[in-house]
Amino acid sequence: MGELRQAGAAAGFSVRRWGPTPRQYSSCLALSPFPSSFWPGSQVAVTFLSLASRLERVCVSKVGVIPGPGLVSNLMWSLWPGRVINAGKSRHNEDQACCEVVYVEGRRSVSGVPREPSRGQGLCFYYWGLFDGHAGGGAAEMASRLLHRHIREQLKDLVEILQDPSPPPLCLPSTPGAAGSSDPSHLVGPQSCWSSQKEVTHESLVVGAIENAFQFMDEQMARERRGHQVEGGCCALVVVYLLGKVYVANAGDSRAIIVRNGEIIPMSREFTPETERQRLQLLGFLKPELLGGEFTHLEFPRRIQPKELGQRMLYRDQNMTGWAYKKIELEDLRFPLVCGEGKKARVMATIGVTRGLGDHNLKVCSSTLPIKPFLSCFPEVRVYDLTQYEHCPDDVLVLGTDGLWDVTSDCEVAATVDRVLSAYEPNDPSSPSHGCNQKEAGDCRRWGLWEDLPPHCLQQGPVPRGLRPHCL
Amino acid sequence: MGELRQAGAAAGFSVRRWGPTPRQYSSCLALSPFPSSFWPGSQVAVTFLSLASRLERVCVSKVGVIPGPGLVSNLMWSLWPGRVINAGKSRHNEDQACCEVVYVEGRRSVSGVPREPSRGQGLCFYYWGLFDGHAGGGAAEMASRLLHRHIREQLKDLVEILQDPSPPPLCLPSTPGAAGSSDPSHLVGPQSCWSSQKEVTHESLVVGAIENAFQFMDEQMARERRGHQVEGGCCALVVVYLLGKVYVANAGDSRAIIVRNGEIIPMSREFTPETERQRLQLLGFLKPELLGGEFTHLEFPRRIQPKELGQRMLYRDQNMTGWAYKKIELEDLRFPLVCGEGKKARVMATIGVTRGLGDHNLKVCSSTLPIKPFLSCFPEVRVYDLTQYEHCPDDVLVLGTDGLWDVTSDCEVAATVDRVLSAYEPNDPSSPSHGCNQKEAGDCRRWGLWEDLPPHCLQQGPVPRGLRPHCL
Repeated sequence: MGELRQAGAAAGFSVRRWGPTPRQYSSCLALSPFPSSFWPGSQVAVTFLSLASRLERVCVSKVGVIPGPGLVSNLMWSLWPGRVINAGKSRHNEDQACCEVVYVEGRRSVSGVPREPSRGQGLCFYYWGLFDGHAGGGAAEMASRLLHRHIREQLKDLVEILQDPSPPPLCLPSTPGAAGSSDPSHLVGPQSCWSSQKEVTHESLVVGAIENAFQFMDEQMARERRGHQVEGGCCALVVVYLLGKVYVANAGDSRAIIVRNGEIIPMSREFTPETERQRLQLLGFLKPELLGGEFTHLEFPRRIQPKELGQRMLYRDQNMTGWAYKKIELEDLRFPLVCGEGKKARVMATIGVTRGLGDHNLKVCSSTLPIKPFLSCFPEVRVYDLTQYEHCPDDVLVLGTDGLWDVTSDCEVAATVDRVLSAYEPNDPSSPSHGCNQKEAGDCRRWGLWEDLPPHCLQQGPVPRGLRPHCL
Repeated sequence: MGELRQAGAAAGFSVRRWGPTPRQYSSCLALSPFPSSFWPGSQVAVTFLSLASRLERVCVSKVGVIPGPGLVSNLMWSLWPGRVINAGKSRHNEDQACCEVVYVEGRRSVSGVPREPSRGQGLCFYYWGLFDGHAGGGAAEMASRLLHRHIREQLKDLVEILQDPSPPPLCLPSTPGAAGSSDPSHLVGPQSCWSSQKEVTHESLVVGAIENAFQFMDEQMARERRGHQVEGGCCALVVVYLLGKVYVANAGDSRAIIVRNGEIIPMSREFTPETERQRLQLLGFLKPELLGGEFTHLEFPRRIQPKELGQRMLYRDQNMTGWAYKKIELEDLRFPLVCGEGKKARVMATIGVTRGLGDHNLKVCSSTLPIKPFLSCFPEVRVYDLTQYEHCPDDVLVLGTDGLWDVTSDCEVAATVDRVLSAYEPNDPSSPSHGCNQKEAGDCRRWGLWEDLPPHCLQQGPVPRGLRPHCL
């Protein structure tokens, strides 16, 4: 059980500016900005920040790596091909990462005739994902291969709506496959609605699409878990860049921060038995059958012993943030649904995260009681509008699993990234494969990334830059 | 139905310093600092801020107003006798306020012999409450008379524990009436517990006591609603000052802020159908019988019309913060559990607040469906440690119902309070009854406090200072 939390990975994405020459920075969100020679065919020209408006005009293929240098010659963006570091705490690597440029084609026009895929009609989004697996690597691997496809699927209906500056229609016609029309006459628009109707933003449609994509991904895992050996589960932290905005979706205990001119902007919060205690307890209270007579929804500061029956013990109910005393009754002797604190906090004495994908087979130890009903596959999505802020060349977005954040703080990560970035030569083709110097290796160990790195990992060659925040 | 939200009240508490002479300020949290002659017998000497440690040594009677000047001669604190302003929007005043100094005597010693009440053995807390009634004034009146007594009752077990600097015992002995023992040999203390036990703070015990007091208050209203004509419900915003800390408990859409040296510190958040949408939807999803076949737990941006069946409408489920389209099915034609936005947001098309006391008889309009299961009586409690901050003479704690905050911002309140306080003469016996000057009367109207004030309110005499933040 303890292994459920032992793996860790981290990724650092640099919001840098490159100019026409390598040392003149321009607007670009760079992930693992190592030279293209290191990952052949992995470069794509892409504009962010001040040039964000060009981004949607970049023509890319459907899901996959973009071949060759891109269209905007003075901007370089190296793709991160999605590898992770095993810190060596679990026997096999259960973590996965993913970076994709995804083209979304609208489903069909209102007339029912499929459109010719051509530049300007579809949407393009940029995607990075970090999947912290537990109890097996299957869920993380499946999520890393498919989650962005589910997001694409959810966005298909929105292609024209998102490109139309007018408010999204509240209601769409029922013609089969007729979603995404930009012709107002075909839509039941706001003008025909009650005066009290809500105005829904484009941004909230993208958030809804990402949320539902997580759910569909989880449902697919449930369906295919036997045939495809989807073992275990995974936390999922993904970033979608679309139409000038960065959407950070987190389901689990990974964390994303933006470091903007030295200031740290949290882009996620962790979902653990402690942070979600009240949601879990409420569910156990409303659906006691999920506790199987083995657990109590009440929280106690420690396990109660039978001899303490009748005494008064501190407890917390689902509505409480404070503690109070209650007389111990027989059913209080059951194990608490949520127990422990910090890294030792557990749901049903088993799992230390409360959101993620998979875990459909997860049972309470020595029991047939399923834990999945208490786990949520829904992410919290935060939005960062890149066009609303001024950025420094060395501003970064850092994604990390708990393996990183357990041993270092936001400020320490920001300071290290800043120190390394300010000395970084972006056009040195050999630097990624050179590895770290002694000091940086020390940082690695401190962050738990290389600690006890097993030989089979070292044999895989140099660690990709994108997974070494200290080397960004 | 609309009247459920029309009443409003506000209270401003000034954290001021008075010195030996009237114009020299010292450390004191002053509520409605009008002269004692205005409210005879309502003064109590009390120290806050830098003199907070003296507070607990003030000997006061049990619940009630403190007679005569207090013990610390250079500090004056006028009690706010608990009156409210009716903004005239509802026919009768449904709001109440309360200010009390409450003495808490420990229940019994471990030996079972009642202690002699004497200075130093009990605890004293200071209490202010603001109760925004709706659908009748009964609940607000009952809460204003009894809630602090429930808090006292909950604190009785904690009298000795809170005064003992060692961590609270996790388990208390079962001897009947033997709560609150400070003898470690009688307690199952941390030393006998698992290594993974939680450490519970004194502060969290007070929070738990306040939370449970709200629940007991609500249960009492449920029991006595017929015999005592407890009509309607009320939002409750209360402040407890105990052992150097200010506990602000909010159940409803009132709001408390501290203005410290010009900086605004939110001490509450509002609980409305919008802010609690996901809690409400989850409950409707898990317990569909509570929806009575009349409502759907899904949110739609407007009411769906039968002719739209089969079309695709924007919706939000309980796990979503974003919006997505779904095909309209028959059951989507039910009214949404949560609808509208802003001041028009409603639960079950009826009530605009989601937490508070009472409302046990509240039914959906033209239906027998009870709304109470969706309302929570539990407050959110925030803690402010007065000893941890430096305060200016004009720092204030402002409590207001939605009637205040609907028409003015935190910053505007802070600016007005600052302007008035800086010119205020605390020792002018006639100032409270003088009323406002023309400019301030304008502010009053802007805040909606005096707007359309009905004659019966004006006949009640001068409005107490504590309810006129603009005159503090």
